[in-house]
Amino acid sequence: MVCFECGKKYGVYDDVFRCECGGSLDIKYDYREIRKVILSQFRRAHPHHWKYWMFYPTLDPSGAVSLGEGGTPLIPFGENLFIKFEGTNPTGSFKDRGSSVEITRAVKTGSKKVVCATTGNMGASVSCYSARAGLKAVIFVPEDVPEQKLAQIKAYGARTVKVKGTYEDAAKRAENYWKKHGGTYLAGDYPFRGEGEKSVGFEIADQLNWDPPASLILPVGNGTLLYSVYKAFSELKECGLVRKIPKFFGIQAKGCNPVVRAFRTGEFRPVEKPKTIADAVRCGNPIDGKKALYAIKKTGGFAEDVTDREIIRAVKNLGRKGIYAEPGGAVAYAGFLKFRMEIPEPAVCVSTGTGLKHGVFA
Amino acid sequence: MVCFECGKKYGVYDDVFRCECGGSLDIKYDYREIRKVILSQFRRAHPHHWKYWMFYPTLDPSGAVSLGEGGTPLIPFGENLFIKFEGTNPTGSFKDRGSSVEITRAVKTGSKKVVCATTGNMGASVSCYSARAGLKAVIFVPEDVPEQKLAQIKAYGARTVKVKGTYEDAAKRAENYWKKHGGTYLAGDYPFRGEGEKSVGFEIADQLNWDPPASLILPVGNGTLLYSVYKAFSELKECGLVRKIPKFFGIQAKGCNPVVRAFRTGEFRPVEKPKTIADAVRCGNPIDGKKALYAIKKTGGFAEDVTDREIIRAVKNLGRKGIYAEPGGAVAYAGFLKFRMEIPEPAVCVSTGTGLKHGVFA
Repeated sequence: MVCFECGKKYGVYDDVFRCECGGSLDIKYDYREIRKVILSQFRRAHPHHWKYWMFYPTLDPSGAVSLGEGGTPLIPFGENLFIKFEGTNPTGSFKDRGSSVEITRAVKTGSKKVVCATTGNMGASVSCYSARAGLKAVIFVPEDVPEQKLAQIKAYGARTVKVKGTYEDAAKRAENYWKKHGGTYLAGDYPFRGEGEKSVGFEIADQLNWDPPASLILPVGNGTLLYSVYKAFSELKECGLVRKIPKFFGIQAKGCNPVVRAFRTGEFRPVEKPKTIADAVRCGNPIDGKKALYAIKKTGGFAEDVTDREIIRAVKNLGRKGIYAEPGGAVAYAGFLKFRMEIPEPAVCVSTGTGLKHGVFA
Repeated sequence: MVCFECGKKYGVYDDVFRCECGGSLDIKYDYREIRKVILSQFRRAHPHHWKYWMFYPTLDPSGAVSLGEGGTPLIPFGENLFIKFEGTNPTGSFKDRGSSVEITRAVKTGSKKVVCATTGNMGASVSCYSARAGLKAVIFVPEDVPEQKLAQIKAYGARTVKVKGTYEDAAKRAENYWKKHGGTYLAGDYPFRGEGEKSVGFEIADQLNWDPPASLILPVGNGTLLYSVYKAFSELKECGLVRKIPKFFGIQAKGCNPVVRAFRTGEFRPVEKPKTIADAVRCGNPIDGKKALYAIKKTGGFAEDVTDREIIRAVKNLGRKGIYAEPGGAVAYAGFLKFRMEIPEPAVCVSTGTGLKHGVFA
């Protein structure tokens, strides 16, 4: 593990989730070794999350805590557009890819308890995989967490703590709890989560027969997913499996757009009172924001925002064509609809979670 | 298509969903032809719904209306037990397997509109696949349909009609509407739905490396799923892919147990006022009940019932181990817990739908 900002190195099983300097951590591999494994068996197999185990820091697929995550459909959606629909994961969102890797690691390190803060989806996923592995889960949620998501977290037997305030307040409480009581702390910026989320990118490349799209459009909450997918394509290129890396477009809700602002002004400033219907991306101070911005700038894409009205229109539009997404799962498509003149095709939008997570629209 | 009761034959594209005599229809194949196709390419491929196209009456996989249904996980769940978790289908239940086949057929027959009655899951699935194919959907639901399911049906742009009374009342209204206005009528007893649902069985056999379990435990609503899975194993045996057919165990809710009563008494009598928390199996007059009973008796299994309290306990028990199921999706497991002394192992329970469909438990 290497700090994204100061470059300090850590071991894979060190109990650290952020650099001493406060920067977020990234994980490095020996790509020559990976290439050998790949060439022998890779192309034949069906795309699914654990197919790409050689790119995960758990290093081997034995003992994987798995519930069949990944292998989600890449759905043709009109001319030159695909939707990668993550709602068919075990808990209904892409978070299961990260949870599968990080709970596998937690088990290997002998952890008995995990602690995390969540806008809802990550908590559901962490609770689920903790339950599967027999670990205790303590989940901190902001007070405005949707009822459906809270019910799901509880169904997995997790202990839930409602915190007055935003996701950031819940994250602070979770970190304090962890410092006092121990266990494995899983925050949004936690590097192993991102490693698991790379499989969204691996699967897209695989499902398009290793011919990447021109553009990838992703929602940005903590920024972890966008950077992970970027990293996935970088790794595939490094290994010779793809020739190019798509342009990355990061979409945020107007009421919670710190990465968009940083893209425009060059300066990161948290949004104190984030407000959007897309609860899954309601992160005012995204800790992987810098990583996401790096991927966007490096590939020549942009960060832009959409209004709640545009998000709701995108939810309806997706539904009318057979894809039921929660608001956060329609943010990327809302961005595509708004900025399509500036986005090269073919393009892939990632829809991060099922509409069953949100419940009834007014 | 052959009538299950009088033996009368119909063509595959005849617009008929029930025999003139009132019996339910079954579909016959040329298994020698199927065997040829299979042996050349079958074993290598990854298990997923359209892998088994040669067993569907649409007869070829081109033009399939698909959203990545099937390929659901078979999750090891303690010693000698597996849960086939259908909650990871595109709309969150096994119904997508049937919808995919029947909407593909509807498109091929030039239909512009589909009409169906539903306890909720089938309506969500039919609406979804209709939306995907550009067909209009008119969905009749009983008044007590869960709000989550109704919201999902509406999200796919279907026209919904709430009917005072039970599922049977909704089915009558749907049939009348169809007689008056035309379109394709999809009822619970509709034979093409069952053909698609066979893939639950194909995948279980495939995922267990063509070595079938001793027992299969399934919930019984209309009875379509149980008979379909039985038919799948019969077909695999006919084609030489498996050597034996498991024993089939059909589980119903005590408040809606017509198949259990028929198993005990030999006589089918509808339950007038079905009452159970497991809304997905709340069918008082199951039209594939005779088929389900046939499969159960033929294989030496039994039909039994569980109380709502036992269903809720099963929901909680599944959740605590990482599987979030709706009440209907916990009925089979509730039956397994209650009657496990009489059920040979290894066993597979089918969990038919995600807990996100149901919402919050009191």
